[in-house]
Amino acid sequence: MFDVRLFLCTRGEIPVYSHTMALPFVRQTVRDMDGYAPGEQPAAGERVVKLNTNENPFQPSPKVMQAIASIESEQLRRYPNATADAFREAAAAVLCVKPDMILAGNGSDDVLAIALLTFCSPGDVLAYPHPTYSLYPVMAELDEVKTAEVPWEKDWALPVEALLEKKPRAIFLANPNAPSGTFVSPQKIEELCKKFSGLVLVDEAYVDFADDNCLPLVREYENIVITRTLSKAYSLAGLRFGFALANADVIREMNKARDSYPCDAISVAAATAAILDQEYARNTWEHVKSERQRLSAELTQMGWKVLPSHANFILAAVPDGRGKDVYLGLKRQGILVRHFDKPGLSDKVRITVGTSQENNALIGGIKALGAAEKAA
Amino acid sequence: MFDVRLFLCTRGEIPVYSHTMALPFVRQTVRDMDGYAPGEQPAAGERVVKLNTNENPFQPSPKVMQAIASIESEQLRRYPNATADAFREAAAAVLCVKPDMILAGNGSDDVLAIALLTFCSPGDVLAYPHPTYSLYPVMAELDEVKTAEVPWEKDWALPVEALLEKKPRAIFLANPNAPSGTFVSPQKIEELCKKFSGLVLVDEAYVDFADDNCLPLVREYENIVITRTLSKAYSLAGLRFGFALANADVIREMNKARDSYPCDAISVAAATAAILDQEYARNTWEHVKSERQRLSAELTQMGWKVLPSHANFILAAVPDGRGKDVYLGLKRQGILVRHFDKPGLSDKVRITVGTSQENNALIGGIKALGAAEKAA
Repeated sequence: MFDVRLFLCTRGEIPVYSHTMALPFVRQTVRDMDGYAPGEQPAAGERVVKLNTNENPFQPSPKVMQAIASIESEQLRRYPNATADAFREAAAAVLCVKPDMILAGNGSDDVLAIALLTFCSPGDVLAYPHPTYSLYPVMAELDEVKTAEVPWEKDWALPVEALLEKKPRAIFLANPNAPSGTFVSPQKIEELCKKFSGLVLVDEAYVDFADDNCLPLVREYENIVITRTLSKAYSLAGLRFGFALANADVIREMNKARDSYPCDAISVAAATAAILDQEYARNTWEHVKSERQRLSAELTQMGWKVLPSHANFILAAVPDGRGKDVYLGLKRQGILVRHFDKPGLSDKVRITVGTSQENNALIGGIKALGAAEKAA
Repeated sequence: MFDVRLFLCTRGEIPVYSHTMALPFVRQTVRDMDGYAPGEQPAAGERVVKLNTNENPFQPSPKVMQAIASIESEQLRRYPNATADAFREAAAAVLCVKPDMILAGNGSDDVLAIALLTFCSPGDVLAYPHPTYSLYPVMAELDEVKTAEVPWEKDWALPVEALLEKKPRAIFLANPNAPSGTFVSPQKIEELCKKFSGLVLVDEAYVDFADDNCLPLVREYENIVITRTLSKAYSLAGLRFGFALANADVIREMNKARDSYPCDAISVAAATAAILDQEYARNTWEHVKSERQRLSAELTQMGWKVLPSHANFILAAVPDGRGKDVYLGLKRQGILVRHFDKPGLSDKVRITVGTSQENNALIGGIKALGAAEKAA
């Protein structure tokens, strides 16, 4: 890509730090943490069927690429608009809210971090049903916020009373949930908003693949924040663009806890084009939902237990609890799915819904595993 | 830009929140904070001479625009590389360090926030010479980190002993400093690294316009972190790309405190192209330094007191202490400079070094102010 010899190092040898330093100036909290382990990302050019990190299988709208192509260098030279107003106006029109009810951030992880800083002080309690998105406890630990992990009730129902008993300052709820794909009804979440005096954050990263959402609650309750992302529904995981929806007074407070310029000029233009092309995005959602249905039916026929999914992935229990074997066997065939080696999850694999061809490759791969086993 | 009527709101009227809510679920710390006020940004198309937010007056390298044009939609569909490795390898070659001595973030403000989370727990003390970059206390307040603001010694010399007396966990030092443009020698900062057992962060946002820098110290001391940005030196304020340099063990710890995917695929490609085109960037730095010299000389001739600047801006005291009058008078002429209504700064204005034409317009504008006054 570039010739490293073009750059002559004139300041002598690069040091090699072979010893492990004590680093007393690093916070104990950070030293004790494990580093974040991102999901498996195959190298560019590697041929795999990649159904492990919940990307949308379709390319982003052609209008996104047009928006990027029309960026002028002057937009890069200058600081961007600090609040991504072009996106806020577009998203407000699409979602029937006002622009000042929207905060844009560098991916919805960024928006989640802003929310945690806005609503929880060090020592406060953040509660969430468990298992869920594994980033919540990592973010909380960095901010010295305590976490209360409350097991889901039977059939992944929301444990309202058990959450409230933890006396939290805020409750985070991924809906649809990851990695289960299950969905809590907006009616149930409305009940929580009424009973709870703290803040309810509904992480709707996957909601465009569901049949309902909590947006109407934002218009009626002041203690709810919804977060969304363009990573999945708009095929833009590589762009890093997420946003929060809440009443304008809450958004004003969250604005104090964000970076001064969280969104760059290109991503604002691309995100704006993406959310305005609803027809394109909705077609991808319909295709994913239809393939999700087919994939779930086929796996069920093969004896797998598939949770009813409202997201663009399914969590399915492998016969005889052999989740890890299937994960590894598929990986040997160049098919990546996700396996969580954790209590309650180790018998299952999480499969991103791909294109028809990718899903066929997955089903073929699973059948090949079964055939190899019978032959052995 | 788009037709809002295309989006039919089916969920009824948008509510108007006319009352100011108490928002008890927001942290007291956040409620008590003022919102961040970004610098004046004229609307697109407004004709102004913009010398108020320290952008580089030259366009980014043409190679940056080529890199953006060659982005494929598949790079946006998938999650990006979590550690911006393409940029790290390029920057390592240019700066003669190893890639694992670099952490990339969403602007250097993001990198500063990561550093604060890595090195300071709630209740710890962050010390810095004052006045300096006004973001430091805002970030500290959000993390419940205490701040100790130590006045600069005479002629903006580093107050080493006074900083150490505050018993901080970390010391932040903008070098060149903003808004003064003054520079502390690497020898003096090395003295601080030796005497101090905590972490020294040198914010080198403007260092490419200076004649020296602290990079060699990163190779010798473990308790130093350098932060840099592509906003100024590479004309990419609109891109949001910054990075930290430190020894690999320290970078490994900082990686635990960052977002899972801080840099998007486009900005990594653009930043990589920018830092590899050293010849282009260096030409802009030389031009800025030469214009800085000329502008300083002309203002001095007009009776202004100009601080010796090592950055792409100058801080200059207006005759008779009339900083605010000059700021307002220039603004009426469509020339934006920065005025800080704070003790020790209110008699001065901060002027970004522009192109020759922009600087001539500024000097003409100041002369016009003087002539108008004599006529009055």
